Amino acid sequence: MAIAKELLGPPRGMRDLLPGEVALRDRVAAAILATYEAWGYRHVETPALEHIRNLTAGQGGDNEKLIFKILKRGEEIADWSSAGSLDALVDHGLRFDLTVPLVRYYAHNRAKLPRLFKAIQIGPVWRAERPQRGRFRQFVQCDIDVIGSTSPLVEVELCAASAAALIVVGFRGFIIRLNDRRILEAMARGCGFAPERHAQVFITIDKLDKIGREGVRAELTEHGHDAAAVTALDALLADLPVPSAEVLAHPIARAATGEDRKVFEDLAGVARAVEQDAKGAYRVVFDPTLVRGMGYYTGTVFEIAYKDYPFSIAGGGRYDKMIGRLIGLDVPACGFSIGFERVVTILAEEGAANEAARRIALIVDDGVDPGRALAEAGKLRADGQAVTLLAREKNLGQQIKALSADGYDRFAILRAAGLGALESTATPAPAS
Amino acid sequence: MAIAKELLGPPRGMRDLLPGEVALRDRVAAAILATYEAWGYRHVETPALEHIRNLTAGQGGDNEKLIFKILKRGEEIADWSSAGSLDALVDHGLRFDLTVPLVRYYAHNRAKLPRLFKAIQIGPVWRAERPQRGRFRQFVQCDIDVIGSTSPLVEVELCAASAAALIVVGFRGFIIRLNDRRILEAMARGCGFAPERHAQVFITIDKLDKIGREGVRAELTEHGHDAAAVTALDALLADLPVPSAEVLAHPIARAATGEDRKVFEDLAGVARAVEQDAKGAYRVVFDPTLVRGMGYYTGTVFEIAYKDYPFSIAGGGRYDKMIGRLIGLDVPACGFSIGFERVVTILAEEGAANEAARRIALIVDDGVDPGRALAEAGKLRADGQAVTLLAREKNLGQQIKALSADGYDRFAILRAAGLGALESTATPAPAS
Repeated sequence: MAIAKELLGPPRGMRDLLPGEVALRDRVAAAILATYEAWGYRHVETPALEHIRNLTAGQGGDNEKLIFKILKRGEEIADWSSAGSLDALVDHGLRFDLTVPLVRYYAHNRAKLPRLFKAIQIGPVWRAERPQRGRFRQFVQCDIDVIGSTSPLVEVELCAASAAALIVVGFRGFIIRLNDRRILEAMARGCGFAPERHAQVFITIDKLDKIGREGVRAELTEHGHDAAAVTALDALLADLPVPSAEVLAHPIARAATGEDRKVFEDLAGVARAVEQDAKGAYRVVFDPTLVRGMGYYTGTVFEIAYKDYPFSIAGGGRYDKMIGRLIGLDVPACGFSIGFERVVTILAEEGAANEAARRIALIVDDGVDPGRALAEAGKLRADGQAVTLLAREKNLGQQIKALSADGYDRFAILRAAGLGALESTATPAPAS
Repeated sequence: MAIAKELLGPPRGMRDLLPGEVALRDRVAAAILATYEAWGYRHVETPALEHIRNLTAGQGGDNEKLIFKILKRGEEIADWSSAGSLDALVDHGLRFDLTVPLVRYYAHNRAKLPRLFKAIQIGPVWRAERPQRGRFRQFVQCDIDVIGSTSPLVEVELCAASAAALIVVGFRGFIIRLNDRRILEAMARGCGFAPERHAQVFITIDKLDKIGREGVRAELTEHGHDAAAVTALDALLADLPVPSAEVLAHPIARAATGEDRKVFEDLAGVARAVEQDAKGAYRVVFDPTLVRGMGYYTGTVFEIAYKDYPFSIAGGGRYDKMIGRLIGLDVPACGFSIGFERVVTILAEEGAANEAARRIALIVDDGVDPGRALAEAGKLRADGQAVTLLAREKNLGQQIKALSADGYDRFAILRAAGLGALESTATPAPAS
């Protein structure tokens, strides 16, 4: 049975990756992995499939609505049409992020893992989102997580390691934005917003980038928040973000007391240490309007902005309660995720050189002993060049032209009589 | 909602991979990829999901029964219980191999691909097999395929490149077994088996490894095949496999005429060329009993055996008709697949060294400026060592012991006063 024409493309919202695309992705993934390994993180892997009940345990936010669900098999669904619900037919789903699987992995393998567990994960996740430009239903995430420590050293290292990885793949001049969920709370409390409406206030603050100070003010007023609170907040939104050296001098910091003061001191320490490590390659700022959507963050949150791109290229934060909620054992954790697809897209747009090895096409005449062809290719390869073997086609000129278009920059013809001189495609040999 | 205890492990038949396991897998995958790229193959990628109709188009053999099926979403299954069949609820499945997706990929992207397309794929596939030792429901396949040429040079290159990749990851002394589907046919015909029962004869021949010549003879007799044919075949099964230099001298080859003779000459040429390239690192043999299960093979088939392992570590063959059947356009193709999971398992059993960089743990006292910690770690890292930062725990001795167990072989303590000397775990510093 032939494949129907409409089924020749990949599934909706997913991609067939061409050789040039994969080469860039491989280079980026390998560089990030090597950097994180040099920082002491260990690469781990979970299956693409997770128990559907773990994926729908309430830690995934809206992502839980986007799960690709997998049908049970065999006997289990023999009576499918009499099942009470569709969910009864499903036992697994494709993971929608790498965090929920990591927590399950940690719980299951804890005895075999170091007490302070530093994990790297690079792998695909799936979300059945409405397809749109630049958004895919299968995409790669690239996370580091540190499980088992509340020390701010964890934040310092996560930020500096993520920045180091971005630098290795070619980024400069990005900005790490830092905030803390507890600072957001303190700020909203200090301004006088009703405590039960803080979450709503944060959703508005999160839009500052897009709607500006006036927009935030207007939306909060429209939502009926206390006018004095709105005015107080508006004043705090001036002169943002705050350079790393000035965190403790900011009005919100100066107003902080007790526990909140400690939060500021830790944040200022993280910002200072990372900025110092940056040696000017990137900046670190405190941004009290940074919210980050996921409900599970409990402390520091971070994001990396690059040029005028309207999205962050990395983000993360501390989630000290999530493991406890999922496995009933309180373990602090903090993670940073590089937006792999965004990073690769930007690099491609900026024309990242693919640094392919010089590629040689060795065209083999009919009648040439194939053992000789292998031996000649092997000699050329020993010089560090990629060599492909091809049987000569009838129209040699056309064959060379096509190879040239495919990125081969040198070619040679192996004839029964001997090896033709290696020529560059700049001066293709006449078809003979 | 906490995760139920029985849901803490990975889904049935799938694996959580620990850091040491992933390190080995990464090393093997990177080495194979680099080798194939040096041979002119290009890495490509298809989505994990395929249209369910493509997966059930008849090219997957028994694998089509093992598909993890994905439920449609939203509106499409609002009326699920009144659907006529379970299949009506499914639009995609997880790929069960990399060959069916490659053919779809080729058909869809042909205009952007070189005429002679040499593809590498390394990625997970999924089969809902009954879990058993050494067999997993998610496992990695590692394929190279050449699409667009009927030249035996393709077979030569596929075999030599696969062997080169195996050598790079540490294998020596393996055996490449070669055969051709047309030789199997000619042999069965020559012996006088009824043409319509050849497929059944091949299934028995395929068991030679396990049941021996007597077993094959007994089974064929039991199945009621012609006694003279059984005797003729039995004689041909003596002195197998055939060294590469003696292919054309073998009785089956000597009996071949016309087209069949050409098949033998090509096979002998491939065997000779690859054996020569091996320079003694591995052997190449002709084995007229090599069948390979997949129905889509049309010509050469190959397999790589290693030591006494009861399974091959790589295999493949020519499938010149499959693309035509699936997309209605006749394009010759040939592929070789390394059994990635088997290779990794053998390497682990043989105690493959993991060549980890020297790993240093930098333990940071409370009160040390984290910027200083980053700087000290950076200095050590610049020497090519992996360095992890950790906040000092209360019981330093225990912390060092745990780090040592986790593979750290050097550690230093960064105190407010200065950097403690770097010490090996052979002489751990006293907890102070």
